[in-house]
Amino acid sequence: MFDSGVGGLTVLRALERHLPRDAFLYVGDTARVPWGTKGPDTVQRYSVRVARHLVDSGCRAIVIACNTASAFALEAVRAAVSVPVIDVITPVAVEVARALAAPPASARHVAVLGTRGTVASHAYPRALAAIDNTLITHQRPCPLFVPLVEEGWVDGAVPEAIARTYLDPLLRENSPDALILGCTHYPMMSAVIARVARAILGRDVPLFESGDATANALAELLGAPSPDTRPVAPSARLQVTDSPELFLDIASRFLGRPVDTVEHIDLAG
Amino acid sequence: MFDSGVGGLTVLRALERHLPRDAFLYVGDTARVPWGTKGPDTVQRYSVRVARHLVDSGCRAIVIACNTASAFALEAVRAAVSVPVIDVITPVAVEVARALAAPPASARHVAVLGTRGTVASHAYPRALAAIDNTLITHQRPCPLFVPLVEEGWVDGAVPEAIARTYLDPLLRENSPDALILGCTHYPMMSAVIARVARAILGRDVPLFESGDATANALAELLGAPSPDTRPVAPSARLQVTDSPELFLDIASRFLGRPVDTVEHIDLAG
Repeated sequence: MFDSGVGGLTVLRALERHLPRDAFLYVGDTARVPWGTKGPDTVQRYSVRVARHLVDSGCRAIVIACNTASAFALEAVRAAVSVPVIDVITPVAVEVARALAAPPASARHVAVLGTRGTVASHAYPRALAAIDNTLITHQRPCPLFVPLVEEGWVDGAVPEAIARTYLDPLLRENSPDALILGCTHYPMMSAVIARVARAILGRDVPLFESGDATANALAELLGAPSPDTRPVAPSARLQVTDSPELFLDIASRFLGRPVDTVEHIDLAG
Repeated sequence: MFDSGVGGLTVLRALERHLPRDAFLYVGDTARVPWGTKGPDTVQRYSVRVARHLVDSGCRAIVIACNTASAFALEAVRAAVSVPVIDVITPVAVEVARALAAPPASARHVAVLGTRGTVASHAYPRALAAIDNTLITHQRPCPLFVPLVEEGWVDGAVPEAIARTYLDPLLRENSPDALILGCTHYPMMSAVIARVARAILGRDVPLFESGDATANALAELLGAPSPDTRPVAPSARLQVTDSPELFLDIASRFLGRPVDTVEHIDLAG
C-alpha cells in the first residue's frame, strides 16, 4: 500500500485490525508529500513509481491508500503493474450506496469532504453515480484539515472554527444523509467534524471513511482467511522517501500504536 | 531565483520593485512543494537540481528565495554552481542586527517565526549570532501559516486565533524588540501578525522579512544600476514543475499584479 505521506496510515490501521494475519508494506512518498494540491500528471507519475517498487518488493496486491491518488492514478497504476489494485474511493462509495439504499430510500444526499485535487477530480460523485444514479453528491474541499491534523490540532477552538467554516454552507444547503471523509487524514478529526455537523444540522449524520470499507474490499479480494484467525501483533513494514525521523512520531499517532522502525528508500529515479 | 512553490514570489515582488531593469527567472518546484517539512538531504537535492537549471538558463546570479532552502542548502548550491548565490536569511539578519545596534542598544531580543525545518536548522540564531553575539534569539515554528496563506485566509477570526496560539507564549515570555517573518509566505499575513503581536505586547514590534533585505543585498552584488533607472513593467519569467494552471491565481495574489504566463518545466531527472 502507498500514500504520499502519513494519511494512508489510517487505512493501514483498519487493515491491521481486519486482516491481522497478512503482512503489509506501507510506502509514504514523504519526499514529495502532499499530492492533494498537485496536478493529475504529477500524481500519476509518483503513484506508478511507488507501485512498481511495491511489486518489486514482492507485494501480491496493492492498495492506493490515498484519495487523491485513487482519484487520479487508479487506471495508470493498474496499467503499470500485474497485481490486483484496490483504491480507497470505490469501497466507500459501495458502502454509502448500500447504507442509503436500505428502506426508507428517501435519503438521497451525500456530502463529500476532500482535498482540492480529490474534489476537482469528481471521483466520488462519479463512483457514487456509477452504483446508484439517484444519489445526489455535494462536495467541499477542506485544504486546512491536512496541516491541522499533521500539526496535531485535532480538537479545540481552532479546528472547530475551521470545520465550521467548511461545513456550514455545505450542510445547511444540502442537509445530507451521509458525510464522506474523502481524505485519509480526516478520520483523525472525526470527533470535531461529527460535533460540528451535529451543531449545524441539529441531528447526527453518519460519517463514512476509507479504512473499514477498504479493509473489507481487500479481504474479499484476498479470499477466505486461514482457519487460524488468532490475531498476531501488527508488523507492517514502513518505508518513506524523506527522513524517517520526521515520520516516527506522527506515524505512531496515526496508527494508534508505537512505531519504532521506519526505513528510508530512494525513489528519485 | 527559486523556491519550492509560491512563497518566493513575495521576494520576487520586492526584487521587481527595487531592481525594475533586471530580468528575473523564477522557478517554483511545485511538483515537490512544500520543502519546509522535509529533511535537509531532500531539500539540498531539490535545490541543487533547480539551481543547475537556472545556470543552464543563463542566470548570472541566484537567489534562494526560500527560508528552508536557505537554511539547509546554501553551501550545497554554492558548491554546485559557479555564479554568486544569495540566500534570504543572511540579509535579514544583517538588517535586524543593524536596527538593534543603533543606540540605545539595550534591545537584545529577537523572535523568529518559521517553518519546522527552518526553526530546527537554527539558521537564524546562527546568522544573527555571527553578526552580533549579544543578540538573543527565540524561535517558534508556525506550520499552519503556509496552508492558511495558500487557502487565502490571511485575515479574520481563524488566522487570528492561530496566530495568537503561536505568538502568545513566544512574545509574552521574551518580549522581543524585533520579530522576523522567517518564511516567505508570512508577509502575506503581516497585518494579522502585527495586530496580534500588538495585542499581546501592548506595543508595536518591528517586523522584518526577506523581500526588501534580499533586494538590497542583490543590488549591492550586481553593482551600480544603469544611469537610466526609469522603471519598466515587471516581466519576470515564471516556471513551475507541477501544473501551471494551479499556480496562476495564487501567483497573482502573491505578486500583487496580474500573471498571465507560467511555463511548465520537468526537473524529475
